[in-house]
Amino acid sequence: MILTIDLNTEVPIYQQLRDQIVRAIAAGELRQGDSLPATRQLGADLGVNFHTVNKAYDLLRREGLLRLHRKTGAVVARGPGSGPPPPDFYPEWEGRLRVLLAEAVARGVPAAEVLSRCEAQLRSLTDIEEREHT
Amino acid sequence: MILTIDLNTEVPIYQQLRDQIVRAIAAGELRQGDSLPATRQLGADLGVNFHTVNKAYDLLRREGLLRLHRKTGAVVARGPGSGPPPPDFYPEWEGRLRVLLAEAVARGVPAAEVLSRCEAQLRSLTDIEEREHT
Repeated sequence: MILTIDLNTEVPIYQQLRDQIVRAIAAGELRQGDSLPATRQLGADLGVNFHTVNKAYDLLRREGLLRLHRKTGAVVARGPGSGPPPPDFYPEWEGRLRVLLAEAVARGVPAAEVLSRCEAQLRSLTDIEEREHT
Repeated sequence: MILTIDLNTEVPIYQQLRDQIVRAIAAGELRQGDSLPATRQLGADLGVNFHTVNKAYDLLRREGLLRLHRKTGAVVARGPGSGPPPPDFYPEWEGRLRVLLAEAVARGVPAAEVLSRCEAQLRSLTDIEEREHT
Protein backbone atom coordinates (compact mmCIF):
# COMPACT_ATOMS: atom_id res chain seq x y z
CA MET A 1 0.00 0.00 0.00
CA ILE A 2 1.41 3.35 -1.06
CA LEU A 3 -0.02 6.29 0.88
CA THR A 4 0.13 9.71 -0.69
CA ILE A 5 -0.81 13.20 0.43
CA ASP A 6 -2.49 15.69 -1.88
CA LEU A 7 -1.92 19.26 -0.67
CA ASN A 8 -4.09 20.72 -3.47
CA THR A 9 -7.40 19.60 -2.01
CA GLU A 10 -9.70 20.77 0.77
CA VAL A 11 -9.82 17.21 2.16
CA PRO A 12 -7.92 17.20 5.51
CA ILE A 13 -4.75 15.09 5.53
CA TYR A 14 -6.01 12.70 8.25
CA GLN A 15 -9.11 12.11 6.11
CA GLN A 16 -6.97 11.42 3.03
CA LEU A 17 -4.97 8.84 4.99
CA ARG A 18 -8.14 7.27 6.42
CA ASP A 19 -9.78 7.10 2.97
CA GLN A 20 -6.74 5.43 1.38
CA ILE A 21 -6.54 2.83 4.16
CA VAL A 22 -10.29 2.10 3.80
CA ARG A 23 -9.84 1.59 0.04
CA ALA A 24 -6.77 -0.62 0.60
CA ILE A 25 -8.72 -2.83 3.04
CA ALA A 26 -11.69 -3.03 0.65
CA ALA A 27 -9.34 -3.90 -2.22
CA GLY A 28 -7.61 -6.64 -0.21
CA GLU A 29 -4.25 -4.85 -0.39
CA LEU A 30 -4.40 -4.74 3.41
CA ARG A 31 -5.71 -7.96 4.97
CA GLN A 32 -7.21 -8.62 8.39
CA GLY A 33 -4.27 -9.03 10.80
CA ASP A 34 -1.85 -6.92 8.76
CA SER A 35 0.16 -4.33 10.68
CA LEU A 36 0.24 -0.68 9.68
CA PRO A 37 3.37 1.44 10.02
CA ALA A 38 3.97 3.10 13.39
CA THR A 39 2.51 6.60 13.51
CA ARG A 40 5.90 8.34 13.97
CA GLN A 41 7.42 6.33 11.12
CA LEU A 42 4.54 7.00 8.73
CA GLY A 43 4.45 10.66 9.73
CA ALA A 44 8.17 10.98 9.00
CA ASP A 45 7.83 9.12 5.67
CA LEU A 46 4.98 11.36 4.52
CA GLY A 47 6.33 14.58 6.02
CA VAL A 48 3.27 15.09 8.23
CA ASN A 49 2.89 15.41 11.98
CA PHE A 50 2.45 12.05 13.71
CA HIS A 51 -0.61 13.45 15.47
CA THR A 52 -2.23 13.60 12.02
CA VAL A 53 -1.48 9.91 11.48
CA ASN A 54 -2.81 9.20 14.98
CA LYS A 55 -6.03 10.99 14.13
CA ALA A 56 -6.51 8.84 11.01
CA TYR A 57 -5.76 5.62 12.91
CA ASP A 58 -8.09 6.60 15.74
CA LEU A 59 -10.93 7.33 13.31
CA LEU A 60 -10.39 3.90 11.71
CA ARG A 61 -10.43 2.33 15.16
CA ARG A 62 -13.79 3.97 15.95
CA GLU A 63 -15.06 2.73 12.58
CA GLY A 64 -14.10 -0.81 13.57
CA LEU A 65 -11.46 -1.21 10.86
CA LEU A 66 -8.31 -1.07 13.03
CA ARG A 67 -7.29 -2.35 16.44
CA LEU A 68 -4.71 -0.20 18.24
CA HIS A 69 -2.37 -1.74 20.80
CA ARG A 70 0.36 -0.02 22.74
CA LYS A 71 2.76 -2.87 21.97
CA THR A 72 1.78 -4.24 18.56
CA GLY A 73 0.64 -0.95 17.01
CA ALA A 74 -2.18 -0.64 14.47
CA VAL A 75 -3.57 -3.90 13.08
CA VAL A 76 -6.31 -4.32 10.46
CA ALA A 77 -9.39 -5.64 12.29
CA ARG A 78 -11.78 -6.31 9.40
CA GLY A 79 -11.82 -7.10 5.71
CA PRO A 80 -14.03 -8.24 2.84
CA GLY A 81 -13.94 -11.82 4.13
CA SER A 82 -14.53 -11.12 7.81
CA GLY A 83 -18.30 -11.60 7.90
CA PRO A 84 -21.12 -9.07 7.86
CA PRO A 85 -20.83 -5.90 9.96
CA PRO A 86 -22.98 -5.41 13.07
CA PRO A 87 -26.54 -4.26 12.22
CA ASP A 88 -25.85 -0.80 13.63
CA PHE A 89 -23.35 -0.23 10.79
CA TYR A 90 -26.08 0.19 8.20
CA PRO A 91 -28.26 3.12 9.34
CA GLU A 92 -25.39 5.60 9.54
CA TRP A 93 -23.72 4.35 6.34
CA GLU A 94 -26.98 4.32 4.39
CA GLY A 95 -27.74 7.84 5.59
CA ARG A 96 -24.50 9.04 4.01
CA LEU A 97 -25.08 6.90 0.91
CA ARG A 98 -28.54 8.41 0.50
CA VAL A 99 -27.19 11.98 0.59
CA LEU A 100 -24.37 11.15 -1.84
CA LEU A 101 -26.76 9.53 -4.34
CA ALA A 102 -29.20 12.43 -3.87
CA GLU A 103 -26.38 14.85 -4.79
CA ALA A 104 -25.99 13.23 -8.20
CA VAL A 105 -29.76 13.02 -8.81
CA ALA A 106 -30.19 16.66 -7.71
CA ARG A 107 -27.47 17.67 -10.17
CA GLY A 108 -29.39 16.01 -13.00
CA VAL A 109 -27.69 12.60 -13.30
CA PRO A 110 -30.39 10.03 -14.27
CA ALA A 111 -30.97 7.35 -11.59
CA ALA A 112 -29.95 4.59 -13.99
CA GLU A 113 -26.60 6.29 -14.60
CA VAL A 114 -26.03 6.83 -10.87
CA LEU A 115 -26.56 3.10 -10.33
CA SER A 116 -24.26 2.08 -13.18
CA ARG A 117 -21.54 4.34 -11.76
CA CYS A 118 -21.99 2.65 -8.36
CA GLU A 119 -21.62 -0.71 -10.08
CA ALA A 120 -18.49 0.40 -11.95
CA GLN A 121 -16.85 1.69 -8.76
CA LEU A 122 -17.67 -1.54 -6.93
CA ARG A 123 -16.34 -3.62 -9.81
CA SER A 124 -13.06 -1.70 -9.81
CA LEU A 125 -12.65 -2.34 -6.07
CA THR A 126 -13.35 -6.05 -6.54
CA ASP A 127 -11.07 -6.30 -9.57
CA ILE A 128 -8.12 -5.14 -7.50
CA GLU A 129 -9.02 -7.70 -4.85
CA GLU A 130 -9.09 -10.49 -7.44
CA ARG A 131 -5.74 -9.44 -8.87
CA GLU A 132 -4.19 -9.48 -5.39
CA HIS A 133 -5.60 -12.93 -4.62
CA THR A 134 -4.35 -14.64 -7.78
CA MET B 1 -40.03 20.68 2.74
CA ILE B 2 -39.70 20.33 6.50
CA LEU B 3 -36.18 21.00 7.79
CA THR B 4 -35.20 19.54 11.13
CA ILE B 5 -32.12 19.75 13.32
CA ASP B 6 -30.74 16.74 15.17
CA LEU B 7 -28.61 17.83 18.14
CA ASN B 8 -27.71 14.22 19.02
CA THR B 9 -25.32 13.72 16.10
CA GLU B 10 -21.76 14.74 15.28
CA VAL B 11 -22.93 16.06 11.90
CA PRO B 12 -22.60 19.89 11.98
CA ILE B 13 -25.92 21.77 11.72
CA TYR B 14 -25.01 23.51 8.43
CA GLN B 15 -24.25 20.08 6.97
CA GLN B 16 -27.59 18.70 8.19
CA LEU B 17 -29.40 21.59 6.50
CA ARG B 18 -27.39 21.17 3.31
CA ASP B 19 -28.03 17.40 3.23
CA GLN B 20 -31.79 17.83 3.69
CA ILE B 21 -31.99 20.44 0.93
CA VAL B 22 -29.98 18.14 -1.42
CA ARG B 23 -32.40 15.28 -0.68
CA ALA B 24 -35.42 17.55 -1.19
CA ILE B 25 -34.09 18.68 -4.59
CA ALA B 26 -33.34 15.07 -5.61
CA ALA B 27 -36.82 14.00 -4.47
CA GLY B 28 -38.51 16.78 -6.44
CA GLU B 29 -39.92 18.35 -3.28
CA LEU B 30 -37.91 21.44 -4.20
CA ARG B 31 -37.98 22.24 -7.93
CA GLN B 32 -35.67 24.33 -10.07
CA GLY B 33 -36.72 27.98 -9.59
CA ASP B 34 -38.24 27.44 -6.13
CA SER B 35 -37.27 29.97 -3.47
CA LEU B 36 -35.85 28.95 -0.12
CA PRO B 37 -36.69 30.81 3.09
CA ALA B 38 -34.57 33.85 3.91
CA THR B 39 -31.61 32.92 6.12
CA ARG B 40 -32.79 35.03 9.09
CA GLN B 41 -36.30 33.60 8.86
CA LEU B 42 -35.12 30.00 8.62
CA GLY B 43 -32.59 30.53 11.40
CA ALA B 44 -35.34 31.93 13.65
CA ASP B 45 -37.72 29.07 12.77
CA LEU B 46 -35.10 26.43 13.56
CA GLY B 47 -33.57 28.20 16.53
CA VAL B 48 -30.12 28.37 14.92
CA ASN B 49 -27.86 31.28 14.08
CA PHE B 50 -28.55 32.71 10.61
CA HIS B 51 -24.82 32.44 9.86
CA THR B 52 -25.30 28.66 10.07
CA VAL B 53 -28.07 28.85 7.47
CA ASN B 54 -25.84 31.11 5.36
CA LYS B 55 -23.07 28.52 5.52
CA ALA B 56 -25.43 25.79 4.27
CA TYR B 57 -26.76 28.00 1.45
CA ASP B 58 -23.25 29.05 0.43
CA LEU B 59 -22.10 25.41 0.28
CA LEU B 60 -25.09 24.58 -1.92
CA ARG B 61 -24.24 27.56 -4.13
CA ARG B 62 -20.67 26.29 -4.56
CA GLU B 63 -22.10 22.86 -5.38
CA GLY B 64 -24.18 24.43 -8.14
CA LEU B 65 -27.54 23.63 -6.53
CA LEU B 66 -28.57 27.14 -5.43
CA ARG B 67 -28.31 30.63 -6.86
CA LEU B 68 -28.05 33.39 -4.26
CA HIS B 69 -29.24 36.90 -5.07
CA ARG B 70 -29.27 39.89 -2.78
CA LYS B 71 -32.83 40.73 -3.82
CA THR B 72 -34.54 37.42 -4.58
CA GLY B 73 -32.72 35.32 -1.99
CA ALA B 74 -31.83 31.65 -2.47
CA VAL B 75 -33.31 29.93 -5.52
CA VAL B 76 -32.94 26.28 -6.54
CA ALA B 77 -30.65 26.22 -9.59
CA ARG B 78 -30.79 22.53 -10.59
CA GLY B 79 -32.97 19.48 -10.33
CA PRO B 80 -33.47 15.95 -11.64
CA GLY B 81 -34.86 17.31 -14.92
CA SER B 82 -32.28 20.03 -15.55
CA GLY B 83 -29.91 18.10 -17.79
CA PRO B 84 -26.62 16.37 -17.03
CA PRO B 85 -24.08 18.08 -14.76
CA PRO B 86 -20.84 19.49 -16.17
CA PRO B 87 -18.19 16.77 -16.70
CA ASP B 88 -16.10 18.10 -13.81
CA PHE B 89 -18.88 17.04 -11.41
CA TYR B 90 -18.05 13.37 -11.76
CA PRO B 91 -14.40 12.95 -10.62
CA GLU B 92 -14.93 14.53 -7.20
CA TRP B 93 -18.32 12.84 -6.65
CA GLU B 94 -17.03 9.44 -7.77
CA GLY B 95 -14.02 9.81 -5.49
CA ARG B 96 -16.35 10.17 -2.51
CA LEU B 97 -18.62 7.39 -3.82
CA ARG B 98 -15.64 5.08 -4.12
CA VAL B 99 -14.58 5.67 -0.50
CA LEU B 100 -18.14 5.21 0.78
CA LEU B 101 -18.59 1.92 -1.12
CA ALA B 102 -15.12 0.80 0.02
CA GLU B 103 -16.17 1.41 3.64
CA ALA B 104 -18.97 -1.13 3.34
CA VAL B 105 -16.80 -3.66 1.48
CA ALA B 106 -14.00 -3.22 4.05
CA ARG B 107 -16.51 -3.85 6.84
CA GLY B 108 -17.47 -7.17 5.22
CA VAL B 109 -20.62 -6.28 3.25
CA PRO B 110 -20.64 -8.39 0.05
CA ALA B 111 -20.39 -6.30 -3.15
CA ALA B 112 -23.78 -7.59 -4.36
CA GLU B 113 -25.44 -6.38 -1.16
CA VAL B 114 -23.72 -2.98 -1.38
CA LEU B 115 -25.13 -2.59 -4.89
CA SER B 116 -28.64 -3.66 -3.91
CA ARG B 117 -28.59 -1.12 -1.06
CA CYS B 118 -27.54 1.59 -3.56
CA GLU B 119 -30.46 0.54 -5.76
CA ALA B 120 -32.93 0.61 -2.83
CA GLN B 121 -31.79 4.09 -1.76
CA LEU B 122 -32.09 5.38 -5.33
CA ARG B 123 -35.54 3.82 -5.70
CA SER B 124 -36.76 5.47 -2.51
CA LEU B 125 -35.54 8.87 -3.80
CA THR B 126 -37.31 8.33 -7.13
CA ASP B 127 -40.50 7.05 -5.47
CA ILE B 128 -40.87 10.31 -3.58
CA GLU B 129 -40.37 12.19 -6.84
CA GLU B 130 -43.09 10.16 -8.57
CA ARG B 131 -45.54 10.71 -5.71
CA GLU B 132 -44.93 14.47 -5.87
CA HIS B 133 -45.43 14.57 -9.64
CA THR B 134 -48.75 12.71 -9.69
